[in-house]
Amino acid sequence: MASHILDFLILGNNFGTSEMRQIWSEQNRLEKQVKVEVALAKAQGELGVIPAEIADTIIAKADASKLSLEQLAEEAAKAKHSLMSTISALQKQVGDAGEYIHYGATTQDIVDTATVLQIQQSFAIIERDTKLIASQLKLLAKQYQYLPMVGRTHGMQALPTTFGFKLAVWLDEFVRHLQRLSEIKQRVLVGNISGAICTYASMGELGPQVEQRALTLLGLNTPNIGWQAARDRFSEYASVIALISGTLGKIGNEFYNLMRTEINEVEEPFSDGKIGSTTMPHKRNPAALEGLASLTAPLLKSVALIHESMKVEHERDAMSWRAEWIALPEINLYISAQLQTALAVLKGLKVNADQMLANLAKQNGLLLSEKIMFEIGKRLGKQTAHHLIYENAMQAFEQNRPFKSLLLEDPRINNHFTEAELDNWLNPINYLGSAAEKVEQVIKYAEQSGVL
Amino acid sequence: MASHILDFLILGNNFGTSEMRQIWSEQNRLEKQVKVEVALAKAQGELGVIPAEIADTIIAKADASKLSLEQLAEEAAKAKHSLMSTISALQKQVGDAGEYIHYGATTQDIVDTATVLQIQQSFAIIERDTKLIASQLKLLAKQYQYLPMVGRTHGMQALPTTFGFKLAVWLDEFVRHLQRLSEIKQRVLVGNISGAICTYASMGELGPQVEQRALTLLGLNTPNIGWQAARDRFSEYASVIALISGTLGKIGNEFYNLMRTEINEVEEPFSDGKIGSTTMPHKRNPAALEGLASLTAPLLKSVALIHESMKVEHERDAMSWRAEWIALPEINLYISAQLQTALAVLKGLKVNADQMLANLAKQNGLLLSEKIMFEIGKRLGKQTAHHLIYENAMQAFEQNRPFKSLLLEDPRINNHFTEAELDNWLNPINYLGSAAEKVEQVIKYAEQSGVL
Amino acid sequence: MASHILDFLILGNNFGTSEMRQIWSEQNRLEKQVKVEVALAKAQGELGVIPAEIADTIIAKADASKLSLEQLAEEAAKAKHSLMSTISALQKQVGDAGEYIHYGATTQDIVDTATVLQIQQSFAIIERDTKLIASQLKLLAKQYQYLPMVGRTHGMQALPTTFGFKLAVWLDEFVRHLQRLSEIKQRVLVGNISGAICTYASMGELGPQVEQRALTLLGLNTPNIGWQAARDRFSEYASVIALISGTLGKIGNEFYNLMRTEINEVEEPFSDGKIGSTTMPHKRNPAALEGLASLTAPLLKSVALIHESMKVEHERDAMSWRAEWIALPEINLYISAQLQTALAVLKGLKVNADQMLANLAKQNGLLLSEKIMFEIGKRLGKQTAHHLIYENAMQAFEQNRPFKSLLLEDPRINNHFTEAELDNWLNPINYLGSAAEKVEQVIKYAEQSGVL
Amino acid sequence: MASHILDFLILGNNFGTSEMRQIWSEQNRLEKQVKVEVALAKAQGELGVIPAEIADTIIAKADASKLSLEQLAEEAAKAKHSLMSTISALQKQVGDAGEYIHYGATTQDIVDTATVLQIQQSFAIIERDTKLIASQLKLLAKQYQYLPMVGRTHGMQALPTTFGFKLAVWLDEFVRHLQRLSEIKQRVLVGNISGAICTYASMGELGPQVEQRALTLLGLNTPNIGWQAARDRFSEYASVIALISGTLGKIGNEFYNLMRTEINEVEEPFSDGKIGSTTMPHKRNPAALEGLASLTAPLLKSVALIHESMKVEHERDAMSWRAEWIALPEINLYISAQLQTALAVLKGLKVNADQMLANLAKQNGLLLSEKIMFEIGKRLGKQTAHHLIYENAMQAFEQNRPFKSLLLEDPRINNHFTEAELDNWLNPINYLGSAAEKVEQVIKYAEQSGVL
Repeated sequence: MASHILDFLILGNNFGTSEMRQIWSEQNRLEKQVKVEVALAKAQGELGVIPAEIADTIIAKADASKLSLEQLAEEAAKAKHSLMSTISALQKQVGDAGEYIHYGATTQDIVDTATVLQIQQSFAIIERDTKLIASQLKLLAKQYQYLPMVGRTHGMQALPTTFGFKLAVWLDEFVRHLQRLSEIKQRVLVGNISGAICTYASMGELGPQVEQRALTLLGLNTPNIGWQAARDRFSEYASVIALISGTLGKIGNEFYNLMRTEINEVEEPFSDGKIGSTTMPHKRNPAALEGLASLTAPLLKSVALIHESMKVEHERDAMSWRAEWIALPEINLYISAQLQTALAVLKGLKVNADQMLANLAKQNGLLLSEKIMFEIGKRLGKQTAHHLIYENAMQAFEQNRPFKSLLLEDPRINNHFTEAELDNWLNPINYLGSAAEKVEQVIKYAEQSGVL
Repeated sequence: MASHILDFLILGNNFGTSEMRQIWSEQNRLEKQVKVEVALAKAQGELGVIPAEIADTIIAKADASKLSLEQLAEEAAKAKHSLMSTISALQKQVGDAGEYIHYGATTQDIVDTATVLQIQQSFAIIERDTKLIASQLKLLAKQYQYLPMVGRTHGMQALPTTFGFKLAVWLDEFVRHLQRLSEIKQRVLVGNISGAICTYASMGELGPQVEQRALTLLGLNTPNIGWQAARDRFSEYASVIALISGTLGKIGNEFYNLMRTEINEVEEPFSDGKIGSTTMPHKRNPAALEGLASLTAPLLKSVALIHESMKVEHERDAMSWRAEWIALPEINLYISAQLQTALAVLKGLKVNADQMLANLAKQNGLLLSEKIMFEIGKRLGKQTAHHLIYENAMQAFEQNRPFKSLLLEDPRINNHFTEAELDNWLNPINYLGSAAEKVEQVIKYAEQSGVL
Repeated sequence: MASHILDFLILGNNFGTSEMRQIWSEQNRLEKQVKVEVALAKAQGELGVIPAEIADTIIAKADASKLSLEQLAEEAAKAKHSLMSTISALQKQVGDAGEYIHYGATTQDIVDTATVLQIQQSFAIIERDTKLIASQLKLLAKQYQYLPMVGRTHGMQALPTTFGFKLAVWLDEFVRHLQRLSEIKQRVLVGNISGAICTYASMGELGPQVEQRALTLLGLNTPNIGWQAARDRFSEYASVIALISGTLGKIGNEFYNLMRTEINEVEEPFSDGKIGSTTMPHKRNPAALEGLASLTAPLLKSVALIHESMKVEHERDAMSWRAEWIALPEINLYISAQLQTALAVLKGLKVNADQMLANLAKQNGLLLSEKIMFEIGKRLGKQTAHHLIYENAMQAFEQNRPFKSLLLEDPRINNHFTEAELDNWLNPINYLGSAAEKVEQVIKYAEQSGVL
Repeated sequence: MASHILDFLILGNNFGTSEMRQIWSEQNRLEKQVKVEVALAKAQGELGVIPAEIADTIIAKADASKLSLEQLAEEAAKAKHSLMSTISALQKQVGDAGEYIHYGATTQDIVDTATVLQIQQSFAIIERDTKLIASQLKLLAKQYQYLPMVGRTHGMQALPTTFGFKLAVWLDEFVRHLQRLSEIKQRVLVGNISGAICTYASMGELGPQVEQRALTLLGLNTPNIGWQAARDRFSEYASVIALISGTLGKIGNEFYNLMRTEINEVEEPFSDGKIGSTTMPHKRNPAALEGLASLTAPLLKSVALIHESMKVEHERDAMSWRAEWIALPEINLYISAQLQTALAVLKGLKVNADQMLANLAKQNGLLLSEKIMFEIGKRLGKQTAHHLIYENAMQAFEQNRPFKSLLLEDPRINNHFTEAELDNWLNPINYLGSAAEKVEQVIKYAEQSGVL
């Protein structure tokens, strides 16, 4: 019976995917810990630190799937220690070979390296989904490269842009995220098996070689020196996920706003039978978007916790460690839900091109005030033009009249242009600048980046 | 299979108590939601909004314990809605009366009020344990009122104090916490049943009366106006818990430091068979204290998340809501573990009075430099005295010699006191100031406060 | 030349008021520190701890306004101590009486008590402005009690409400804030003068009396026991400000959204000559609202920092202290700007009643789907009605047709009502529920609360 | 008169360096903004967008140093706009050429690109100091490669290590920090000049070329697409600084703990005349270390704020922008103080080798319990040995007797070793494992890394 929403049956999938939940499950944690113990024994057997046949026995018989978490928990409570009961249970599994289980290792060797194995699994999923989103954004940016829509600043209509341009900004961001993931990967996926305080004292002279071999068997890199007291790799990993989550939350928020009844430019995927409200039959809520937008905040809290946990005392302490046990799974779970939700939204997004067009006309011409100013400016000087256009714009707004009418009526300027010119200037399609060209450039860069 | 450590079998109890876990379990959440639906029906039956016999049927037949969370989850996924499947299941349970389940209510009415019922349960536990800790601190402050020990500032030995004084500072803090809990209680335990946007439009003219009656049945207060868009009560509750957690984390950290091998003034409860390390047999680690000290950081992150979630858009949104669903249980769970751990530590604390005495002598007299300065100051002026004593103290430290020897050798001052006087001044017992008197005062205040 | 935006000439006023900046200025900090030293001397003179005439000299001659911060800074850098140079400078000011400046006190006595004096000044401003906002909200809630507008949930149009109702929710919240301020006031405004580790050892037997008298002279309360190691009062103060800021940020965000070009229901005060953009003449940006909305985030970060700083080591440390020096002024400054901005916005708010009406009609009837469902439900059963109305609503939305037309065409329901009934049901004015009544109730409560 | 401690005369230098303060000063902000306007004019002149001679006039006459911040602030308040008054003032400076100042640009083009110029300056300082610290750590790690000291876990003595090993862990971390800085540099130092919503609409067809040329003139990279709505670069920069600060805070905390009176293994640089306390003459406080340790917490808060500010609405908003204006300077300032303090501490650190030796003996042999267990284990089996050594260790601790005596007295084991063997095992120098070898490896890696 779960108490954290990440593990709720009804709501859990909104906060993390089942795929990622499996990785951070207590069962997988146990499996990875056993995997590390076995790899250690194998490496020690190969290097002659323990008898080869002992290692073989351990490899053959140690089996996490046969351990009972309930029983381990009971024993752990007695010893007031989180790993001891696992070691004892493994010793029972392997019989006489048990003397050589966990040989020379300390608890944190096992627990930390197992955690890195979980990160390795998570990393693959995150990289996969980040790529999928980037690809989907590329597709959409291309598709909507020329679709005109209102650009907004400070929540207010500003100038025309294209929907593809908005998507290209995100695509470019995702390409950077992929570059970041690629850069940190080898630095993050590093294990640690070096004994109580990383000096290998209990492991004998072959300690460093044993570590290297065991970590290689696990598919992990070997550190220059033990990092029980240096947790920057976790913080680095968390930081990059924070950036990805930041973009995803922004996208969720953006579509949430564009889906508002009064704006109505996009709609998240709707499926028959989807209920918006238990009481208001007409409600089609941005439920997925709210989920997407809302998970950045808790994720950032977990990232902040990981950052704080860099403060380890002496050769190690369990205070910063506990923070990691809380925060690392949270970060990976929240991002998994955000990535999958974003993907689903991008794939099923309904784009209301008509409404985008309608919104471009909503301000009755004011949207093009900058264009008018520049054109009049060419004839009257930019400062004079700014002053005159500002005045007309304020009046158009306050009197709720078409901008064009006021401009045509203003004797200070109306002899400097024809109505045809004015109509031309007021057409949003004519004022998209280099929007489409930039979409092109971003897509080309993404394709050549090698990360997609 | 849990993915969050709060629900781990092996480590979960270090992060939350099973008592509190039960309260925030998915099962209890469901039970409380059903309880609210039933109370609503009962109130509506009493006030004639729905037929009385219908209400009776609902009261008799709606039964959360017979609902299957797995099945509800399956249905919820289809409707993409978190409560709809529960309502449907209840409707099936009550047959024809189903038409009147959730009558006029909106999802958030039920979910929010159920959450407040969970807070009501949590509040009682937190208040109970806060009182128990205050009582235990009172006992210990009395017991150690006169036990001398070193007072430290900036991590360095400063002046003598008593152990009871340290405890009294915490007792006074806990009395304030109890006062805070008492002040906010009625303001926090407030339900909300007022329809889609709190206007009672769907509930008819008797709406406000129905709400009042239903909340009274649930033991909750009635708001002046719906708070779907006003979440300050949750933030206030979280803030007071933050303060309690702050004190508890500080106590954990303090004892952790006092238990250091080189200080060794206290030890957390030790039981036979407790293992400090899988590899170092001598280790007696401050495991409980690290747990106590470490949980404040994640709790504060959850509090920060709740604070942020005050930002609700319009009449309500589900973004801030999700943050609450994450953070509220976390806050209650972390504090539950901290309270119980603190209680256990305070009850079983081993106090090493001998080592406290030894530490008082560790600086070879320098601990009393202030006393000497004041006494010499009475004879030579305080500024002059500060200058001379500073000089002697720095030399004593750098030459690692007894402070007394240097003072006796310094011709500028040694004719201003006798060696007997000096011995008297250098005795830490003589320089405890009003420490014991203050302990008395704090205990008396606590007893008269009415909150203990 | 300031490096923090709070002290920028161009932008500083957007982040804090000059009134509050003065309180937290380095000059006022110095003045308050000197004020504490003088009060201490006065109390000691009265109680005979130091000669009465010495105290008189100190009172007469100690003068912060004549001290040079530049010079104090230079001396402080040499001694690597933040208060020593101030004490030395005061000693010079008072001549021979200098021996009795800072008599028996420790640095933190002075610095902490001076900080509380700054909080005392800030508290008065915050309480004043919180009251003014509450009063303004009361006025507006009354004024717009019946003004109908769209209520929104999840960013989507949900049901009709009144503008006064929205304001009343906030008013109720502000009344709670005032109650909170009132409850914590006496607990927060507490000084501390008790020597190096709060035992009064250096202050003699009269220590506690000296402290009480000095604090009374300063208008502060006296603690039961020194709080150099118990900082919960600052965290409590910060928490209540967090709540106020949370409401203010929400209001800023709400109006920002209601001011969007496509919603356009309110506009922040506009004054002639206000520039929205250096390049788009038509822009009327929600600049004040963005400021109001944006300051909650940094304020909450400072509150989180204060919460963390409860973790003091031993009898005190300077690590948590520094966090307070950073965060306390920030919190007070950010809230000061938010309060003043909110007040200005509320006083000058432009309310577009026409546009509110237009928006009520925007969904072509769907806004009233709940009402229709309940009415049809009375005739066909609520579940059946929900199903039928849901179907019609989805079609109306997807075909972009009037809800009314579809309802009239649907043979399953159209013989259960007349068109006149339908028109009546579809009129938003008829579905405001108890909105206006609740506004009344909130105003009455506010008036009787005694905090306004 | 500053209100933020970063700008205080007395305490400011503890929170930021004057070098960094200058970079983030309002004056330098203005200078950089003017620099961007001038570069824009120069690029436009070169490309024929504006007349070449006009550009020359702007280059020649625009001069930030002659502008008055006071006057700009006054004008800005009137226009309620932060840049307009600067543009107007520049227009006045350049006479008729004023028409072409800020030509086609939007406020955010100028402000953002100027901010990146400030980051460019900060980056250089941070990289410089990070290298200096790495070099100093390399020096010290070499120097103390073999100096034995106690290794501690959970605050308790665990095993012997060397001081050089501790330093090498940090060195390895700093090498990673330098790699990170190197990786992000080109991605972070990117300007943006593309008009109101990044479409270059107001800049004509040459817009993208103008941007590229202007940014090249400023020494910045050109983005694929405008990033007014994509702030991940700032968050990435902040994240890497968070990691550096995390390590620095940890180092400060570590030395603070090692300097405790009872541990006394290191002391921060002490200079004659340094005052620890206004009342306790003997105090030599870890003031610099507390400063170093304490600044990570506020810095992480600012990083969290930057992370949140990734949530930009639409084409841009000023809410996230304000958060950056607060947080970016704070991050750079706090890290500047930490870097300089760390450097000073590392250069002047007093290492008490004698006390390190004394502390190795403090536990009367228990420090080597693991070694004994492994040796006895070779003879009796590891599990049996763990059990027996655990028993003896617990007794030695509780009876406060030498571990050796108990081992010699225990009939179950004492015939399995000689006293000479035991003495050998109990000598900490013999149980340093690969500590020194690892130091070597880290130094070699650092030297070959190319980042030092």
